[in-house]
Amino acid sequence: MHFTEMAAYDDADVPVITRGEGAYVYDSDGNRYLDGLAGLFVSQVGHGRSEIADAIAEQARELAYFPIWTYAHPRAVELADRLAGLAPGDLDRVFFTTSGSEAVESAWKLARQYFKAIGEPTRHKVISRRLAYHGTSMGALSITGLQAIKTPFEPLVPSTVQVPNTNFYRAPRHGDDLEAFGRWAADQIEEAIVQSGPETVAAVYVEPVQNSGGCFPPPPGYLQRVREICDRHGVLMVSDEVICAFGRLGEYFGATRYGYLPDMITFAKGATSGYVPLGGLIAREKLMEPFKEEGAAFLHGITFAGHPVAAAAALANLDLFESEGVLDNVRENGPVLRATLEKLLDLPIVGDVRGDGFFYGIELVKDKETKETFTEEESHRLLKGFLSGALFDAGLICRADDRGEPVVQLSPPLTCGPEQFDEIERVLRKVLTEAWDRL
Amino acid sequence: MHFTEMAAYDDADVPVITRGEGAYVYDSDGNRYLDGLAGLFVSQVGHGRSEIADAIAEQARELAYFPIWTYAHPRAVELADRLAGLAPGDLDRVFFTTSGSEAVESAWKLARQYFKAIGEPTRHKVISRRLAYHGTSMGALSITGLQAIKTPFEPLVPSTVQVPNTNFYRAPRHGDDLEAFGRWAADQIEEAIVQSGPETVAAVYVEPVQNSGGCFPPPPGYLQRVREICDRHGVLMVSDEVICAFGRLGEYFGATRYGYLPDMITFAKGATSGYVPLGGLIAREKLMEPFKEEGAAFLHGITFAGHPVAAAAALANLDLFESEGVLDNVRENGPVLRATLEKLLDLPIVGDVRGDGFFYGIELVKDKETKETFTEEESHRLLKGFLSGALFDAGLICRADDRGEPVVQLSPPLTCGPEQFDEIERVLRKVLTEAWDRL
Repeated sequence: MHFTEMAAYDDADVPVITRGEGAYVYDSDGNRYLDGLAGLFVSQVGHGRSEIADAIAEQARELAYFPIWTYAHPRAVELADRLAGLAPGDLDRVFFTTSGSEAVESAWKLARQYFKAIGEPTRHKVISRRLAYHGTSMGALSITGLQAIKTPFEPLVPSTVQVPNTNFYRAPRHGDDLEAFGRWAADQIEEAIVQSGPETVAAVYVEPVQNSGGCFPPPPGYLQRVREICDRHGVLMVSDEVICAFGRLGEYFGATRYGYLPDMITFAKGATSGYVPLGGLIAREKLMEPFKEEGAAFLHGITFAGHPVAAAAALANLDLFESEGVLDNVRENGPVLRATLEKLLDLPIVGDVRGDGFFYGIELVKDKETKETFTEEESHRLLKGFLSGALFDAGLICRADDRGEPVVQLSPPLTCGPEQFDEIERVLRKVLTEAWDRL
Repeated sequence: MHFTEMAAYDDADVPVITRGEGAYVYDSDGNRYLDGLAGLFVSQVGHGRSEIADAIAEQARELAYFPIWTYAHPRAVELADRLAGLAPGDLDRVFFTTSGSEAVESAWKLARQYFKAIGEPTRHKVISRRLAYHGTSMGALSITGLQAIKTPFEPLVPSTVQVPNTNFYRAPRHGDDLEAFGRWAADQIEEAIVQSGPETVAAVYVEPVQNSGGCFPPPPGYLQRVREICDRHGVLMVSDEVICAFGRLGEYFGATRYGYLPDMITFAKGATSGYVPLGGLIAREKLMEPFKEEGAAFLHGITFAGHPVAAAAALANLDLFESEGVLDNVRENGPVLRATLEKLLDLPIVGDVRGDGFFYGIELVKDKETKETFTEEESHRLLKGFLSGALFDAGLICRADDRGEPVVQLSPPLTCGPEQFDEIERVLRKVLTEAWDRL
């Protein structure tokens, strides 16, 4: 199993999920769970959607696979067109991958070959943010800001630099002024570019809302300032939207939600609502220019990229977004989700509720006044020893994460509404209260 | 498009493949093509198989996605069990990925964390073979032995070392003695291990039949000798079977075909016959040992790994392998394919026909006696300028590749027989004759 302490399970103990319907999944004993994480930030339109199942079966019968290496097939073309239309500005060039890690890798590779092609061959480094998760293949892992999951695998790809993220709850400065904090955090990126030598920096990677650490939204003006800094130093801005795209924040793309224009957007997960693996990147036209030259090629390729069945799943998924008003639902109900989760702030263990759209983190603390967090041992005992299991037993699938300070993360299917939010709040209130009593 | 000279196409010129049936695909003008490359070494049971389409639709309705991060679902469990049963020896532990590159990366990551866990933390390097293609994400690309597709993206992951491959046709030594050549080539691996410092080497990656360069089979005894060398120096042997597994060589795994026991097998492509993206690695039990310790975890994970719909496709694919005797067909007809292709040796341009199973490369030469190859300009003009297009126009999809000496590669669906082989030979004879006349 992935990212799993194997010794914690006998074979018989591993929860086996067998069936899904809408926002709910069922285990092998018939128990029902609210899928509060949408699988893994994936199942935007919910489980068991026959519209997507029918579309992929039809495509598999017609043409299940053909490479887009010097060929094309209709579904990849249609999907690329559609994504170019949904993405902001001149983000019009689509390169497909199979996964989010591959999307992050492909954006770095494109940046590196692009700069070599336009005569700036020393630009190869990437700046990213502390705790940020950008994937686990070695290139993506190099960009990831979680040292603990890098150490066993080093040496990795040189050279990446990590800067502060936008965790305002634990702001080392300007803790009383969100916009000033945002300016400071953005300026840390500029400082890292200058320190690294601007002529060596290829790209800055940011998620619209940073996932790892527990949903850090961007302070107002932060992403615009990052854009300016990138422009000032000739650095590409990559918006890693593997989690945030496709409605998670109420828009097709996080860049639209927050009004900035990155040079590339990476996506995966929600693009197909997880029905078939698919990822990719969308690049601005200027990144294509050097590859239009006679004899030039982006020397990169992925067997399963733009897979016909995956593309059919994505198209059917986008059809559902339109016919069911999925974005509208997130925009309308996002504030309701926030308000419902904020009720939990009356619990002594709940320090912070933060996020946007249908994407929230709840930070747990030992002392609300001082924001004191748990020791590593307490955190491990609390999250792995109690919370994960207790939440699951109480019928809620979410994520109890300790890669930064301990948080519980929520990211329900985008078709949810107040009924599910209340259910989430009820379970969290019960289990978090018990957790506090056990400490 | 992937690995594509974009300037060579107006939008209107890109061949659009719309439909597939068995070993044939059709373009948007209704023209029929024999898919002599099985998509991209992928479509083992052929196109348009409703058995797999039905299986994936059913699974998508039941449970399209759930992560295997601390959970399980029935299809992933069944597929892991089945693969463990098919793989040789105690290759019993399965780790799923989405793609071949991710499988290659995951094996390297497993090797690195394994050695750190057992107290040999300096073992991180990989030895691989010249021209060998192991994938394009940055870790896999570092292992790849094709410098031209690495240069635009450097610096990559340190430290990888490339050694000679098993191209007997161009053997720098022992060109008259295949077994002596094999011993020499294997010993080059030992020399690289010793030169690099055995205590720094984690793994040797070999494909059973090396794809890139044009299908280099292993000389008799070569892979066994590599196994011995790895054992002597405490180095893991990774059999990269992204192309060779699942019947391509007449067995489920290349390791079975050639009778050696690697520490890990990587797979992808043919596992689902390409109906849904899926890859993975299979490891010997000893690699699992350190991860059974209390609190230990392989700190690696992939969102879409073990995807329910992909696993359902793989299971349905394996069912077809059994019910239709796919391996038997390859074993029976592999020699017929070889004999049919060897007829082409009467053409002045055909220097060598090599491969195994349903996996062949035809090396083109300017002078058969001296084995003189083409200049880079001639090769580019011949392959990109004429052959690729002419073969396609004549109704045959195959690969004209110039990443080593120019070769034409064949890898038809495993359901093919003499009728398709004759068709391949007819088209190749016609087009290669014309190519020779044009030189």
